[in-house]
Amino acid sequence: MLSADQLANLRIVLVDTRNPLNIGAAARAVSNFGFSSFRLVHPYDVAFQGARSAVGAAKILETAEVYETLPEAIADCTLIVGTTAVRHRELHLALRRLDAGAKVIQKHLAQKSTPHRARGKNRNAAASLRANRVALLFGSEKFGLSNEDLSHCHWLMRIPTREEHISMNLGQAVAVCLYELIRDPKKTAAFERLPEKLVPANAGEVERFTNILTEALSLSGFLDRRTVADADDRIRRLVRRLKLPQRDADMWTGIMRQIVWKLNHPNHE
Amino acid sequence: MLSADQLANLRIVLVDTRNPLNIGAAARAVSNFGFSSFRLVHPYDVAFQGARSAVGAAKILETAEVYETLPEAIADCTLIVGTTAVRHRELHLALRRLDAGAKVIQKHLAQKSTPHRARGKNRNAAASLRANRVALLFGSEKFGLSNEDLSHCHWLMRIPTREEHISMNLGQAVAVCLYELIRDPKKTAAFERLPEKLVPANAGEVERFTNILTEALSLSGFLDRRTVADADDRIRRLVRRLKLPQRDADMWTGIMRQIVWKLNHPNHE
Repeated sequence: MLSADQLANLRIVLVDTRNPLNIGAAARAVSNFGFSSFRLVHPYDVAFQGARSAVGAAKILETAEVYETLPEAIADCTLIVGTTAVRHRELHLALRRLDAGAKVIQKHLAQKSTPHRARGKNRNAAASLRANRVALLFGSEKFGLSNEDLSHCHWLMRIPTREEHISMNLGQAVAVCLYELIRDPKKTAAFERLPEKLVPANAGEVERFTNILTEALSLSGFLDRRTVADADDRIRRLVRRLKLPQRDADMWTGIMRQIVWKLNHPNHE
Repeated sequence: MLSADQLANLRIVLVDTRNPLNIGAAARAVSNFGFSSFRLVHPYDVAFQGARSAVGAAKILETAEVYETLPEAIADCTLIVGTTAVRHRELHLALRRLDAGAKVIQKHLAQKSTPHRARGKNRNAAASLRANRVALLFGSEKFGLSNEDLSHCHWLMRIPTREEHISMNLGQAVAVCLYELIRDPKKTAAFERLPEKLVPANAGEVERFTNILTEALSLSGFLDRRTVADADDRIRRLVRRLKLPQRDADMWTGIMRQIVWKLNHPNHE
């Protein structure tokens, strides 16, 4: 699980994005998943801050950093990862699936580098350890990352979409990647809870219900004891299959008792 | 890993969706991740098929089923799961985080139910096994699922967004949920590849490069042997830290050799 500082050291970099809605959606995912460093390289529409769909992402859009070129946007990072939908292009780069790639990124963010100066002149200066920063690049909606963009990457990552429709919407791709990066099955929250384990009714409670149900079936005309010899057994098995919970047994018996009463007093108001 | 049939048995149900762009984006994610059953309950804009952002999702939008009410949309399902961003509402339902909930859904989709009739009259009719179908519900952008919608659910699922900004864009929430449902770290694809393990250059190759580099440093005036006594050792350590790969050692030596030649022949064309 990444710390807040480590989350802040992932730079989400959008290159040549055309649609301000996608910038807004990406910013929203950045905020949803607790990241904060959002960088735009050469966005086609510089009026991106008006991105309508960015509910709750205003702060991310305000602090977004805009760069003219990719090298400027990634200069402070030690690991550059590109995202791609492409499978069969002659890639010179390694390609990891999202889940495997996210593990490598998490590990890199969790480590710190010791600058040479700190080692030489100030061996105990733990504070001068340099946090690793990672850039995660997303290309334009139409063309993805260019070959020049790719040449800045250490390796590539892909989302496991199906072969016949590999290309995702940009905002959705960002959301899925960031979700995988914060995914942590070990972490549970206090408000999460499993379905209640229902205590089953005991045989006495089940039998009380069975008896009153049998009476209702008889009174209503559903049950014709002359044609079905083992009617009582059938009804008992029917009720057993219900798995009546203990907490509801009295309620069901009460409901049926009321029905029986009404069947016996059809004209009573 | 779910089969194609099992993927088709997950109904992605959007309830009271307002924005056609979100319907388009949701449909695109349905297609990206290999699902196919897309249902809309009472969409605010019935002109949803024009949803602009739905690149590649035309087929999903064409075959989308529109219902007036939720009960109609989920009638053929045996497990109904609602999605929610809400944490602290007085929920009567169990709440699972996405990763845990997805496991339960996968398990349900992978099982089949034996209809009673097949068991009784035609014991060997495996073909009559009824596949389990699951409905995954997404509420409106503004209000989420209503209390009435929630009363149809067996349990709820939430995406682990951060407390301060829990509410996701609808299209992104659908994408993240479906990604988790098809996520399978055991499955690898032939075109994925890890970064090349580089064979390091051997001592002879490294020393050849070190020698030519030292010559270049000397010729260029970078190195002043009179002031640095252990210059050769320093340069050797500098080169060792590079971890020169074997495949590039000759290239680097050649580059430096050319530089040395030019330094020796400054006026040669």
